[in-house]
Amino acid sequence: MQIFKNPDKSEWNSLIQRAVFEKEKLDDVVLEIIENVRLNGDKALLDYSEKFDSVKLSNLTVTETEILEARRFIMNDLANAILLAKKNIEKFHAAQNVIEPSVETMPGVHCMRKNIPIEKVGLYIPGGSAPLFSTVLMLAVPAQLAGCSEIIICTPPDKNGNVHPAILRTAAICGVKKIFKVGGAQAIAAMTFGTETIPKVYKIFGPGNQFVTKAKEIVQQMGVAIDMPAGPSEVLVVADSTGVPEFVAADLLSQAEHGADSQAILLTDSLSFAEKTLKELSKQLSALPRKKIAEQALANSRCIILNSMEECFEFSNLYAPEHLIIASENAGDYVTKVRNAGSVFVGNYSCESAGDYASGTNHTLPTNGYARNYSGVSLDSFMKKISFQHISKQGINNIGKAIELMAETEELFGHKNAVSLRLKSILNV
Amino acid sequence: MQIFKNPDKSEWNSLIQRAVFEKEKLDDVVLEIIENVRLNGDKALLDYSEKFDSVKLSNLTVTETEILEARRFIMNDLANAILLAKKNIEKFHAAQNVIEPSVETMPGVHCMRKNIPIEKVGLYIPGGSAPLFSTVLMLAVPAQLAGCSEIIICTPPDKNGNVHPAILRTAAICGVKKIFKVGGAQAIAAMTFGTETIPKVYKIFGPGNQFVTKAKEIVQQMGVAIDMPAGPSEVLVVADSTGVPEFVAADLLSQAEHGADSQAILLTDSLSFAEKTLKELSKQLSALPRKKIAEQALANSRCIILNSMEECFEFSNLYAPEHLIIASENAGDYVTKVRNAGSVFVGNYSCESAGDYASGTNHTLPTNGYARNYSGVSLDSFMKKISFQHISKQGINNIGKAIELMAETEELFGHKNAVSLRLKSILNV
Repeated sequence: MQIFKNPDKSEWNSLIQRAVFEKEKLDDVVLEIIENVRLNGDKALLDYSEKFDSVKLSNLTVTETEILEARRFIMNDLANAILLAKKNIEKFHAAQNVIEPSVETMPGVHCMRKNIPIEKVGLYIPGGSAPLFSTVLMLAVPAQLAGCSEIIICTPPDKNGNVHPAILRTAAICGVKKIFKVGGAQAIAAMTFGTETIPKVYKIFGPGNQFVTKAKEIVQQMGVAIDMPAGPSEVLVVADSTGVPEFVAADLLSQAEHGADSQAILLTDSLSFAEKTLKELSKQLSALPRKKIAEQALANSRCIILNSMEECFEFSNLYAPEHLIIASENAGDYVTKVRNAGSVFVGNYSCESAGDYASGTNHTLPTNGYARNYSGVSLDSFMKKISFQHISKQGINNIGKAIELMAETEELFGHKNAVSLRLKSILNV
Repeated sequence: MQIFKNPDKSEWNSLIQRAVFEKEKLDDVVLEIIENVRLNGDKALLDYSEKFDSVKLSNLTVTETEILEARRFIMNDLANAILLAKKNIEKFHAAQNVIEPSVETMPGVHCMRKNIPIEKVGLYIPGGSAPLFSTVLMLAVPAQLAGCSEIIICTPPDKNGNVHPAILRTAAICGVKKIFKVGGAQAIAAMTFGTETIPKVYKIFGPGNQFVTKAKEIVQQMGVAIDMPAGPSEVLVVADSTGVPEFVAADLLSQAEHGADSQAILLTDSLSFAEKTLKELSKQLSALPRKKIAEQALANSRCIILNSMEECFEFSNLYAPEHLIIASENAGDYVTKVRNAGSVFVGNYSCESAGDYASGTNHTLPTNGYARNYSGVSLDSFMKKISFQHISKQGINNIGKAIELMAETEELFGHKNAVSLRLKSILNV
């Protein structure tokens, strides 16, 4: 970790920078994949499986038998853990379904909004040796709660053409039955246009490697919506001397182990806290199985000592972290200072991994500074809000004149006429 | 209008098509503008004003004197109309600020979400002879309600270097003071990167021509958020025999006058209603000042007679219109059938122009089928929802084991360790 003691504010803008990755080069490769899938459907997907996943698939669809057999590989205690997490995620996301009141803006003018599910959604779940089945929970639970009528999962097969049983089991627990063995940019393209096997969806969710991310960025211009722009994961810890160095070191490492491009930032007003934490960090690092990855991430990471907690939050809001941990016995007092963050962990026992898995909050969050302008995934992400208005004769009488004047000023006489005719008809009755 | 009587469902997919515009060609032009503004700031903006707006500006900022002088050009009755509209828009959007309950997902695990304003927002208001000051209301009112701390407007100057007084007056009424004379793709670039004069913002709102739309699409990949993808405006009217042909004809025309690329669709289960409406349409068309534009739009427009109202809504949901008018005395009965639409106008007196100006709903809505997966602009659009969790010792005791198991299965031992250390510390006390 790089260490900065009371850096001048003029340096802050460089200190909030994330590592920059050259993603432009991907454009051509990913565009070609998208175009191939659009034109050749399943055939293109099968070709890419052979090329990228080293497997010759005969069928892109996960069969019922495969889903049933996954049960055998998932021990009871893990299944129970998944069920506990699901229950908490359901509870928190169900509470997000708040119904707005209908409003009579003027007598006879009734306006309201209704939450309506997005009908077809696609969830992308990355594969690999460590399957992100927790992401199945984070996406499928709110999709089911929202009432999306078609929910599909795309996830890459392993070299034997199988999907990891933890993913299949979690999908089954969440009631998602349409699972397809396809990964990468080709999966995103398949969900955008539809193929013989894979249904076209209206919105695509989920994390992925740089090809997946680039593909989502591109198809967003092609009629489908995406959850949010993605980037490497990150945590920022604000700690005072009442934080626990051992815990904070573990939290920084749990971020750093995600990938070499992850970033962990420690802000504190206490030099001795920083020193203790960094010492603890090297101790814990040596015992970590993913030590190599974490070491690379820590090279991009920063420990910054500032003059006050006030300044720490000023910096944190400028950085706009995906995860913000407030490590302090008085954490609750600082909550109102948070302006930009994805998800906030308040107090010494609120570790990021709780929110990553089981506390109930969603772990699909804005990264790379996007917490300034995006929310994390929630029930809202699977719905759209449609506005409705009912205007009575009395209502149009009350607002008609104003509309006529405004439409006239905008030189939209057809708009004016639509009101004038109605006003006239009321007078004539 | 093209007329279709009971088209086979196999034809529906072609009937929901919007006109396709070749926007790819714009890419290079717009990218060059964006890059120039990024590198050269104000100088680039002044150059483009000279080139595109035919005016040599000495100052990009609208002065206080200019804002004050706009008062003189806005008659009292128009100002009152704007105030009435503002009040209704405020009332409806304020009701959208619903606070979600805090949830204790398990004993000791408290989760909540807080609405926090996006700090800096930029509103783009198109210029021209007919200034869209109603869009100032639709964007500035919710931005103010949300509590965005910096709200700026960019709008192109006319040939004399002035902004239309209706725009300035409405901005003043909404309390927006930072107004800049810059339009087109260059305005979008300026708000994305910031220039010497124009502040960088976190989210850009507002309609515009194809250059503006393309620029928003591009800068969305550069760290700034946008309200939604944009396309030509459209209305779909579902009418039964209790609709009023005169009103429906006026509503179709008020859409058609927007632009040659606008689309108006009439769906009805009554042939005689369709015939009466089309007759009324040609009558009203001849009296319309923007007749030429409307005629071109009508060439892209369709009147479709279907077997039942049930089928009309099935088609409408497939089309996913920006504006949906239900023209029937029994309109309320059909509301639950709406699955995809931007804004719905229920009943014979609920004309689209009411929502365009003054009823209280927002007129910035998803077009081109995006009503399947996007909501219109609302208070939410100016806020992000940040999740917070507070976990007590009891809480981590309750969910710790589940987290450990899940993290282990995902092979993220750092994640597991962050929990294990906390569980151990509790045991040790």
